[in-house]
Amino acid sequence: MNIYDIAELAGVSIATVSRVVNDSPKVSEKTKAKVRAVMEEQQYTPNVFARSLGLNSMQTVGVVCPDVSDVYMATCVAYLEKSIRSYGYNCILYCSGYEYADKENAIKQILEKRIDALVLVGSQYAGDGSESDTRYIREAAQKVPVFFIGGSIRCPGVYCVVADAYQAMYDVVSALTESGRKRILFLHDSNSYSAKQKLRGYEDALKDNGLPVLDELKIFAQNKIRKVYEILSEQKDLEFDAAVATDDGLAVGVLKYARSRNLSVPEDVNIIGYNNSELAICCEPELSSIDSRSDVLCKAAIDSMMRLLSGQPIRQKRVVSCRFVKRHTTNF
Amino acid sequence: MNIYDIAELAGVSIATVSRVVNDSPKVSEKTKAKVRAVMEEQQYTPNVFARSLGLNSMQTVGVVCPDVSDVYMATCVAYLEKSIRSYGYNCILYCSGYEYADKENAIKQILEKRIDALVLVGSQYAGDGSESDTRYIREAAQKVPVFFIGGSIRCPGVYCVVADAYQAMYDVVSALTESGRKRILFLHDSNSYSAKQKLRGYEDALKDNGLPVLDELKIFAQNKIRKVYEILSEQKDLEFDAAVATDDGLAVGVLKYARSRNLSVPEDVNIIGYNNSELAICCEPELSSIDSRSDVLCKAAIDSMMRLLSGQPIRQKRVVSCRFVKRHTTNF
Repeated sequence: MNIYDIAELAGVSIATVSRVVNDSPKVSEKTKAKVRAVMEEQQYTPNVFARSLGLNSMQTVGVVCPDVSDVYMATCVAYLEKSIRSYGYNCILYCSGYEYADKENAIKQILEKRIDALVLVGSQYAGDGSESDTRYIREAAQKVPVFFIGGSIRCPGVYCVVADAYQAMYDVVSALTESGRKRILFLHDSNSYSAKQKLRGYEDALKDNGLPVLDELKIFAQNKIRKVYEILSEQKDLEFDAAVATDDGLAVGVLKYARSRNLSVPEDVNIIGYNNSELAICCEPELSSIDSRSDVLCKAAIDSMMRLLSGQPIRQKRVVSCRFVKRHTTNF
Repeated sequence: MNIYDIAELAGVSIATVSRVVNDSPKVSEKTKAKVRAVMEEQQYTPNVFARSLGLNSMQTVGVVCPDVSDVYMATCVAYLEKSIRSYGYNCILYCSGYEYADKENAIKQILEKRIDALVLVGSQYAGDGSESDTRYIREAAQKVPVFFIGGSIRCPGVYCVVADAYQAMYDVVSALTESGRKRILFLHDSNSYSAKQKLRGYEDALKDNGLPVLDELKIFAQNKIRKVYEILSEQKDLEFDAAVATDDGLAVGVLKYARSRNLSVPEDVNIIGYNNSELAICCEPELSSIDSRSDVLCKAAIDSMMRLLSGQPIRQKRVVSCRFVKRHTTNF
């Protein structure tokens, strides 16, 4: 069902439908009523038409992220905004928080604005990937094209650009085991799609290198630096000779704990962060980190979006390789 | 000149003027032409009317900052967005860069959107405060109310919420001198309004405590951590026993330099950052920092804005006190 169908059903031209959408005084009230009745019958809102025709578009892209004060998300939003603007579009920003109800509400509210497309930053919005956890995304995708940065779900109208977190984590954990590390901590702060990819990469690398996967070495900490430090301090018997984290802040927490225990980094403990943020160069020694190349991800997403909005076909999923940035917390 | 004047001049009701603004089919073309002629004559744009009446408003606030990937600005944008949304408004974000032409262009472009008010984050937009450096702001303020976060210029239609950076810097530099520090570096990365306030606080505190103000101790470095480290490394003879910075990143640069020279912090060198960002707790030892309380600033600005948009009078300038957060790079 598109504007052509509505025009046909109402027995008017496409131009007339578009004028009705824009409430033009050039169309009689009688014709308006007729066209609107058809639109209502077909459950189409004027905005959907306007968008499909590029009419009445506010040239606006909605960007939603859980928390723009998070260093990684802020970097993504900065890249997205620049790229969106380079196409002459505006960027409406919405910070949703992390709770399901808040995320659902955020998407609902931003869809009420006349946006042409929606970008979701971070894999938080993919939930655990289940139908029930992503219903609101699936519904949103029936209204506007939805672009995921760093998350992935399979659904018509949803387009994903993801970094290959699995491979990146697999590679560094393999390198750690090959250099003789045997007890490698895995620190994460969510159970999102991307955190799961990283966990799988970690586990597969251990198995492929003949090491056991131990639950005691998987640590969940949401408040990053402080929390990691506290958790490790509470478990003083926990031995480890390396740590990989899903975020630089978590890795800094390990670094601080290692210092408090007089462990040498990288001699006694290798530590690897994720996102290659400014935090990685603030700490001492500076943190080796996996760069998920958010600049490339964000630009690729917006380039695709604009191709789609201009009527061209695009791929539903693009995968970008990560890059390991070696600094001074690793010695392999 | 307001909508009442236009209605009177055109000899129509206010409701009719508002209908003309919204191009309602209920008004005849003849009347529309008459009202529009008056509006043109008086150089009023429909948006100005729409806004003053709350009609045709998109309930949108424009937020412009130089670079949202900067930790401090990202924090402000997060607070602003939350506060703007709590009033049922949207937040359009625009990252302008730091160059004059880019800032001017950003403001021009965002004003073309139907925004109800404009927020400028950071004192960069106040330039050196001169007429020529702020003309584009003054022009913007004729179209929508403009709110400065952390910057200040005197101009009708411009409202400023600033932290008392002068006093904060004066207080910490006084404390440093009282604890016996004699050669205190001042590091800054811009010559903005707020950087100047901090410099004045630094200089006045030195003078009031009987110490000379030395140009060699004032260091300008724009690329923060690395740059500061490089500049100090090039001037190995430069002696100092304390450093205050206009940004945490600059202070981390000093910390890294001190470590490379085997200087003890805080014994040999006291270091104080600014903004109390996440960077301050990543480094080792953790950084004492001045918290400019961006949460309070941002909320105060949006609360004022909403009062203004609902027709109430507000103060043109509000000053919020900073807070010194003592960690481990100071010993006073």
